[in-house]
Amino acid sequence: MRVVVTGAAGFIGSNLVDALVGADHDVVGLDNLSTGRLEFLEQALQHERFEFRKLDLVDDTDALTSSLERADAVIHLAANADVRFGWDAPRRDLEQNVVATQNVLEAMRACEVRRILFSSTGSIYGDSACVPTPEDVSFPLQTSLYGASKVAAEGYVTAYAEAGHVSATVFRFVSILGPRYTHGHVIDFVRHLRRDPELLPVLGDGSQRKSYLDVSDCVAAITSRLAVEPRVEVFNLGVDGFCTVNQSIRWITEKLGVSPRLTFSGGDRGWVGDNPFIYLDTTRIRATGWTTRYTIREAVERTVDFLVAHPELLDPRPGS
Amino acid sequence: MRVVVTGAAGFIGSNLVDALVGADHDVVGLDNLSTGRLEFLEQALQHERFEFRKLDLVDDTDALTSSLERADAVIHLAANADVRFGWDAPRRDLEQNVVATQNVLEAMRACEVRRILFSSTGSIYGDSACVPTPEDVSFPLQTSLYGASKVAAEGYVTAYAEAGHVSATVFRFVSILGPRYTHGHVIDFVRHLRRDPELLPVLGDGSQRKSYLDVSDCVAAITSRLAVEPRVEVFNLGVDGFCTVNQSIRWITEKLGVSPRLTFSGGDRGWVGDNPFIYLDTTRIRATGWTTRYTIREAVERTVDFLVAHPELLDPRPGS
Repeated sequence: MRVVVTGAAGFIGSNLVDALVGADHDVVGLDNLSTGRLEFLEQALQHERFEFRKLDLVDDTDALTSSLERADAVIHLAANADVRFGWDAPRRDLEQNVVATQNVLEAMRACEVRRILFSSTGSIYGDSACVPTPEDVSFPLQTSLYGASKVAAEGYVTAYAEAGHVSATVFRFVSILGPRYTHGHVIDFVRHLRRDPELLPVLGDGSQRKSYLDVSDCVAAITSRLAVEPRVEVFNLGVDGFCTVNQSIRWITEKLGVSPRLTFSGGDRGWVGDNPFIYLDTTRIRATGWTTRYTIREAVERTVDFLVAHPELLDPRPGS
Repeated sequence: MRVVVTGAAGFIGSNLVDALVGADHDVVGLDNLSTGRLEFLEQALQHERFEFRKLDLVDDTDALTSSLERADAVIHLAANADVRFGWDAPRRDLEQNVVATQNVLEAMRACEVRRILFSSTGSIYGDSACVPTPEDVSFPLQTSLYGASKVAAEGYVTAYAEAGHVSATVFRFVSILGPRYTHGHVIDFVRHLRRDPELLPVLGDGSQRKSYLDVSDCVAAITSRLAVEPRVEVFNLGVDGFCTVNQSIRWITEKLGVSPRLTFSGGDRGWVGDNPFIYLDTTRIRATGWTTRYTIREAVERTVDFLVAHPELLDPRPGS
């Protein structure tokens, strides 16, 4: 198949590209490189089957459309994914997550590309009282700009599908960890501990529960639905189980061989609009035969291993 | 109270403005007059308490912000509401319904206006299997661009509310009828019957069930929540009961004293993405004391009466 991946130079995108190229698909990777890193595509760029195009899904709609010519499927991962800074730049999520998604859908209509796989988030369940949360839980209220933008994008994807323009698979992710993970609390902790192995400041009270999926399990779920042609299907993606931030800190510090004193900012949330606990019911995706290979602890440890092997990622990026 | 109404020159907006001015509120009406009609505000414009400002919520954000100064509440009705033409101009809903809503929310943040009442739609329930549909039904899939844009806008309104920036009431409307209703099937039918009282072409097979609320009942529900200050509340607005398009045609033709032959385009939907049946469970809003004064039949008949009294509205508008 000829597959277009948006956000190809990102954490999940680059892992996905490697998997697709390894499975002998022709892959066109798109990324505006605002947070993606070309070095994540080093392996892929050695392959004839892979082509990279730097473009922005909001601004470069003509280049987007021409990139989709002859494609069999689009896996749309590109997004502004940093939930924490939503209120400093409240329009960014709307542009990068909603407008960009409609641009992808319109480019697909123009090129008659039928198949879209879309990465949404468990954040759209807000503060659901039903945990683990199934896909068909009660209509939730949005609690973050990120969740609002993703539920909006999902709405567009499914509306295009229901009208017959595309065949859509929507994945709602828990937090993903693993090789090439370059934002969020694991890298923050590793970075802090490298500067000061004696002291680790923690947002919230450390009791926040989190459910993490390893990126290779995430990628396996996405590729498992590539050749299917549903009208619309929606799958939660996550692991059976959860950890606390405190547990995850223990695994990280053990792995690094340090014993810092912890200071807590307090409260049960790390930031405004943070979901205190996203834990998804994954019965539906498991019924297709998909299963996880890594535990939460392994996902955390694999992330630490990768960061230790790539200390250059711990430095602030030039210009950022 | 000083109340800002967006979409003030529209069907619901102008009825709401009249009610607010009549209840001694100071009202600022905003409208870009793309579909609104200044003549609907003739009464209101006689009042000192009412001020009209022509501006576009997408393009004129500075004027929007200055319009919200000293306001106590914003009732945000402005929207692109024509579901049928969504696929000819797929970006219009996103701009007019989502971007415009975030612009209103940002203007409120800038002016420290706390209270927002927002008009959403029963279309966001898609093809719900649960009828009459309650507010907390299973997470629905969107089936129209209009529904997708409104669920997106709702998501932003509730995210701003959950973050403490605003106090929000979201109303999900069934179709609204009554004086000043100038699009949709009633005006289409009256217009056709004036040209040709012998023949009436009907989209679909006429069996489509519809639940209509009279605009004065809709306005009464909105004003009843004006002085409340919830974090977030969501209410369905509709009548207990429904009619078929065929019944509604009978009421219209009886009222007009004509007996046309009916031709049906066939199928159970009038247009791509049309919801075959929106019938909402209104237990929640009724529990606040609100109730309907008009039946569906009365709402249809009041619409016909108004159109007969204002035949100029049946003519295509200059330039449109």
